Amino acid sequence: MLAGIILPFEAISQTKTPTEMTNNQNAALFPKGDKLPDSHFTGNAFLTPLLAKDKNHDFGIGNVTFETGARTNWHTHPRGQVLIVTEGAGFYQEKGKSARPIKKGDVVNVPENTEHWHGAAAATKMVHIAITNFKGDTNVVWLKPVSEIDYNTVNKQ
Amino acid sequence: MLAGIILPFEAISQTKTPTEMTNNQNAALFPKGDKLPDSHFTGNAFLTPLLAKDKNHDFGIGNVTFETGARTNWHTHPRGQVLIVTEGAGFYQEKGKSARPIKKGDVVNVPENTEHWHGAAAATKMVHIAITNFKGDTNVVWLKPVSEIDYNTVNKQ
Repeated sequence: MLAGIILPFEAISQTKTPTEMTNNQNAALFPKGDKLPDSHFTGNAFLTPLLAKDKNHDFGIGNVTFETGARTNWHTHPRGQVLIVTEGAGFYQEKGKSARPIKKGDVVNVPENTEHWHGAAAATKMVHIAITNFKGDTNVVWLKPVSEIDYNTVNKQ
Repeated sequence: MLAGIILPFEAISQTKTPTEMTNNQNAALFPKGDKLPDSHFTGNAFLTPLLAKDKNHDFGIGNVTFETGARTNWHTHPRGQVLIVTEGAGFYQEKGKSARPIKKGDVVNVPENTEHWHGAAAATKMVHIAITNFKGDTNVVWLKPVSEIDYNTVNKQ
């Protein structure tokens, strides 16, 4: 039997007194985490892992922070993904479709095997929780970067 | 092929101008939603559904708001649950163990078939996202309420 696991990310990343935490309800939900690699992201994007795949969960959960202008490469998920936008605003675009503006409070159900990207707007950061299903050991297939021309076009919509 | 689905809860629940939304980054992440039934919850708890189980996701996602003093009944999940606390502070307790204080930014991996409850503190509201796995058609088995005596004992820790 697994014990319940509580991951105190705030406690790991920074030391706060209880009073500071009580008074800090408007702070970011999670710490920014580690910078994501230029091989899969354009600009400054950061990941805080929240939950690993385990025997009950056939998915992983992470918090991704996109600074202004930052976005994923084009990519696919073999069994889809759920994005929950927790801060700011940006875009979600499937190949061959118009980009959809997304903002704090939006939930995106990313279909399986569908080329797409997501990220911040050019002038606004965006933070989302990502719940990514696995198919076997694979949860993402990375493709090429979103070009500056394509990204600028989306931001001028 | 499923189309990507975006659920604009803020747009459904209230009308805001873009300027208000831009200036409203500290507002609640999701609307409070509908009151949860007294048969499974004590006090004022509310649910906003975020995502239904579908062919890719063997889980449902909801946002639960517990006003001060509100909590679930004791209950179990046949394949576990993940809680992501997005606001405030409260408690998570497994039967026979001490209650664990939980607060904004904490993630709880609730094990399968383990009697437990979660909710707000007596003096602090608590909001969490709940990702609840299904085993067949079942994702929760509800048991009896958390007594006032037990709840008060936890709050005096």
